[in-house]
Amino acid sequence: IHKLDLKLEAIEKGGYEHFMLKEIFEQPKSIADCMRGRLNASAGELTLGGIQNYAEALAQADRIIIVACGTSWHAGLVAEYFIEDMCRIPVEVEYASEFRYRNPVIKEGDILIAISQSGETADTLAAIELAKAKGAIVFGIVNTVGSSIARATHEGAYLHAGPEIGVASTKAFTAQLTVLIMVFLKLAKRKGTIAESRFRELLIELESVPQKVEKALKSDDQIREISELFKDAHNFLYLGRGYNFPVALEGALKLKEISYIHAEGYPAAEMKHGPIALIDENMPVVFIATRDSSYDKIVSNIQEVKSRKGKVIAIVTEGDVLIPKMADFVIEVPATHEALMPLVSVIPLQLLSYHIALMRGCNVDQPRNLAKSVTVE
Amino acid sequence: IHKLDLKLEAIEKGGYEHFMLKEIFEQPKSIADCMRGRLNASAGELTLGGIQNYAEALAQADRIIIVACGTSWHAGLVAEYFIEDMCRIPVEVEYASEFRYRNPVIKEGDILIAISQSGETADTLAAIELAKAKGAIVFGIVNTVGSSIARATHEGAYLHAGPEIGVASTKAFTAQLTVLIMVFLKLAKRKGTIAESRFRELLIELESVPQKVEKALKSDDQIREISELFKDAHNFLYLGRGYNFPVALEGALKLKEISYIHAEGYPAAEMKHGPIALIDENMPVVFIATRDSSYDKIVSNIQEVKSRKGKVIAIVTEGDVLIPKMADFVIEVPATHEALMPLVSVIPLQLLSYHIALMRGCNVDQPRNLAKSVTVE
Repeated sequence: IHKLDLKLEAIEKGGYEHFMLKEIFEQPKSIADCMRGRLNASAGELTLGGIQNYAEALAQADRIIIVACGTSWHAGLVAEYFIEDMCRIPVEVEYASEFRYRNPVIKEGDILIAISQSGETADTLAAIELAKAKGAIVFGIVNTVGSSIARATHEGAYLHAGPEIGVASTKAFTAQLTVLIMVFLKLAKRKGTIAESRFRELLIELESVPQKVEKALKSDDQIREISELFKDAHNFLYLGRGYNFPVALEGALKLKEISYIHAEGYPAAEMKHGPIALIDENMPVVFIATRDSSYDKIVSNIQEVKSRKGKVIAIVTEGDVLIPKMADFVIEVPATHEALMPLVSVIPLQLLSYHIALMRGCNVDQPRNLAKSVTVE
Repeated sequence: IHKLDLKLEAIEKGGYEHFMLKEIFEQPKSIADCMRGRLNASAGELTLGGIQNYAEALAQADRIIIVACGTSWHAGLVAEYFIEDMCRIPVEVEYASEFRYRNPVIKEGDILIAISQSGETADTLAAIELAKAKGAIVFGIVNTVGSSIARATHEGAYLHAGPEIGVASTKAFTAQLTVLIMVFLKLAKRKGTIAESRFRELLIELESVPQKVEKALKSDDQIREISELFKDAHNFLYLGRGYNFPVALEGALKLKEISYIHAEGYPAAEMKHGPIALIDENMPVVFIATRDSSYDKIVSNIQEVKSRKGKVIAIVTEGDVLIPKMADFVIEVPATHEALMPLVSVIPLQLLSYHIALMRGCNVDQPRNLAKSVTVE
């Protein structure tokens, strides 16, 4: 029976050495699955069956609270940027564990969005119950069908990303982003806070994301080579601005989780308020520096790190000619709209953490001390 | 002339080896200076001359945005907990550098609070100008009289903490908290969101904070001994919950800034969503675990770290008998109301970073790569 189990596991891994690697490479498909039947770019339509009865309440919201933990909290931060940008509704992103214990300000009809891959995260579930007791309307963004959080929320949208086995979340993160983007693009359209042309453009861009992720995955060999050079580092900094700031947090978390290297993410401009003191020739700094509205600013942040002899690995947009002159290593990703870039720019960071962890001999799929779903408080 | 300069500096340091140490020990006085003429606990009165013309607008706010950078941003996070708890107004705390570049949602009459020690922080100043252009009312919480931010804001309150010379902010942080607490206690009173008895109790507690800080400073020798044991650590985690969560961030930032040790702060419950993978026998974890409403929860977080063989240094309330049985080292601070605890619990963390930096031979007052005010973007 044991033998059969092993064979079964090998089949489930679909030829990959680890579930995590399989799930990273599955993302062009899981993102497409997430959009299937929902996104019709040529018709300019978004259909989200799970958000109907309370869609008007969502459109009337004068404030949205997002609660989540870990990687889902990072997806919530991207959503904050997206919702404020597109729907013009103020958003507050809360750690579920902090929110639930601090007598938060919630009034009747307030909107709460809960994000959880497993749908069983204890602190997030408790935050939902608290908000419901105060009269909030709660939407769930959940992967596992029929999970506790799916059942506790008023409405919601499933990820349709398929089961995620690797403890470090990868495809669930990109699926969360995809669903959140669809939900709030639809809302922006309904509210009239987005021009029709921009709406159409974003739908078309979103539809092309799976191909762009596919292309980003082609850097795998190059990322393995870079990993070889940095596998013995004790520390990493990850820096980004705007939509790529939460990506920096997520990249750092991946490395922490599976390689046990102390990596920390920061908004790049905060560097000068403290973290830059850490930088010397032994400190690798990963910049997520794709071409967007904060490009010039992040270029100067890269220069500041280089002038302190930090080692820079930069995630850049294909064809960037400026950053390769400054950075020690560049990894290219295809261009897309900056609001969708986290879906693409996170890919090399997932691969970087995977290869480094593997080279350090860590158990990638079952990192020490961590559980796949945190069902205790 | 050179000789005279040195003598002058020695006089300015008032017998302390460094400005930072002087400023840490000055805090009972600087906090009292901050309250002088403003707080009259026996009469139940708070007078803030700088917040008058727009006091009604503040009382009517349905949302408050706080912008800041670095240590001031941590003071903003404490204020978020305080304002939501006491005044029942939703608060959003933003990194100034992120806020200004992302087309934030601000409408006519919205309230923005800008926090800056120097009053010259470039990103914060730019955020103020942006908010003003959109019709926001801006309050400044600033130390330096007549600074750019003080002049750019509609109203505000100065810290009265005296000049801060050490690059790593210490007395400015506690003064910021003191002013923010006074401003928003007064607002809670005006709005009727706080019971008279609780208001009175908090005023009396606040008045006693300088003595409690004085007492907390008496752990200096013990903290020096602990520092000796951990001075060669490569990494530190700082964990707290509730009001002590921002204190964890601030403690970690101090250590980063002056000792160049990679320290990171987290809300304690988030540990299980990733950072706990870092914990082994080489990872010191500082818990800010004073007696408050999340005490039981943080006790279980300590147990989790101990069961992974992490080294625990805990900041506890005087007389705690439970945590000393679990933690490797405990540092006591006097009891106070949990909303005021950051003023006291941050003291041992300032001292810990100071002693570790000194033992590592770092330039405490002028850490590498850092400027006292970040006047560039």
